[in-house]
Amino acid sequence: MKVYGHPGSTCTRKVLTTLAEKNHPFEFVTVDIMKGQGQSPEHLARQPWGQVPVLEEDDGWQMIESRAIIRHLDATLPGTSLTPSNPRDRAKMDQWISIEQSNFTPGVMKILGQLLFARWRGAEPQMSIVEDGRVAVNKAVAVMERELEGREYIAGTGFSLADIGFMPYIEYLFMCGEGNLITDHRNTASWWTRISERASWQKVRAKLQAD
Amino acid sequence: MKVYGHPGSTCTRKVLTTLAEKNHPFEFVTVDIMKGQGQSPEHLARQPWGQVPVLEEDDGWQMIESRAIIRHLDATLPGTSLTPSNPRDRAKMDQWISIEQSNFTPGVMKILGQLLFARWRGAEPQMSIVEDGRVAVNKAVAVMERELEGREYIAGTGFSLADIGFMPYIEYLFMCGEGNLITDHRNTASWWTRISERASWQKVRAKLQAD
Repeated sequence: MKVYGHPGSTCTRKVLTTLAEKNHPFEFVTVDIMKGQGQSPEHLARQPWGQVPVLEEDDGWQMIESRAIIRHLDATLPGTSLTPSNPRDRAKMDQWISIEQSNFTPGVMKILGQLLFARWRGAEPQMSIVEDGRVAVNKAVAVMERELEGREYIAGTGFSLADIGFMPYIEYLFMCGEGNLITDHRNTASWWTRISERASWQKVRAKLQAD
Repeated sequence: MKVYGHPGSTCTRKVLTTLAEKNHPFEFVTVDIMKGQGQSPEHLARQPWGQVPVLEEDDGWQMIESRAIIRHLDATLPGTSLTPSNPRDRAKMDQWISIEQSNFTPGVMKILGQLLFARWRGAEPQMSIVEDGRVAVNKAVAVMERELEGREYIAGTGFSLADIGFMPYIEYLFMCGEGNLITDHRNTASWWTRISERASWQKVRAKLQAD
């Protein structure tokens, strides 16, 4: 299979982490979204919004949307399941994937938009937007902190797709000096240490540094 | 089981449509988010962001997030499955649920925020925001239009959770006079007619009108 993506893209990294957990081989095709390759006719034919990643299986079948791709990879590839088998734990996994998308990531993106992307463009960060982002992230982390009391992972008893969903966003918070949004909370901090030490994540981090 | 929600809430309506498809009995507890009941201590204990819906099963187990709740209801209740059994069709269902959340609904909400909610508050709609919303919805519908060529439903061969996800947003587009965003596209218009004529959706519409 092929993954069209960018090693720095949060959504690409969820797919790469899932493939590393499954220890499944794939070809990585870099779409340099930083240089506008997302808007090339070839890429728009795969992903009409010009985003990454895109998964392509060996017979040419394609799909988009990271949170859907990781579900598909987990359902179809051999290896340890990243989805709880108990229906209620599975429901909580889906719930946390949705909370990540609705209530956590929008706050993170406000922070990254100013402290990372604006600076890359040479613009001055707007600190009022950063502050809005911090409020949203703090709110979500407070809920996660309660959920993680006495638990190792955010859903069910094992590492799951829901944990993977949070990882690339949290790493970027640390990269822009906002790691205290995580480390100020005991359970969330231990959870982050636990999941970010996994070999799969270390492999994905090394890929970004190598490229 | 109980559903805490509001009959006018788009996310509540996805859950009600799923329960109607399954023909499963439940108790509906209105949380009047229009009157601030979402922020009551009792509701915040169920849903920390003060949103609806919340699903509560008979032994008190609860979960939040409509897109996760409908997956759980479909996986655990008897009746016709609303999830394709073929792994690739299922992947496309997950893909379209994610596209609805990422690329369709944000545009719809810009339109509703101005043409519906601002007017309810007695404010003048900002038409530049409405126009941004129209651009985003048009973009998403163009992609849907291609996907729906020769197909009856957005994912797989049967009606699925992915179809349900779009329904409440599309109805609100019609309610604020923007139905042409759908009806201007032949395949999408036929699909909307097909899914909105279902008994489940008619029941959910009647509930809103009755309350």
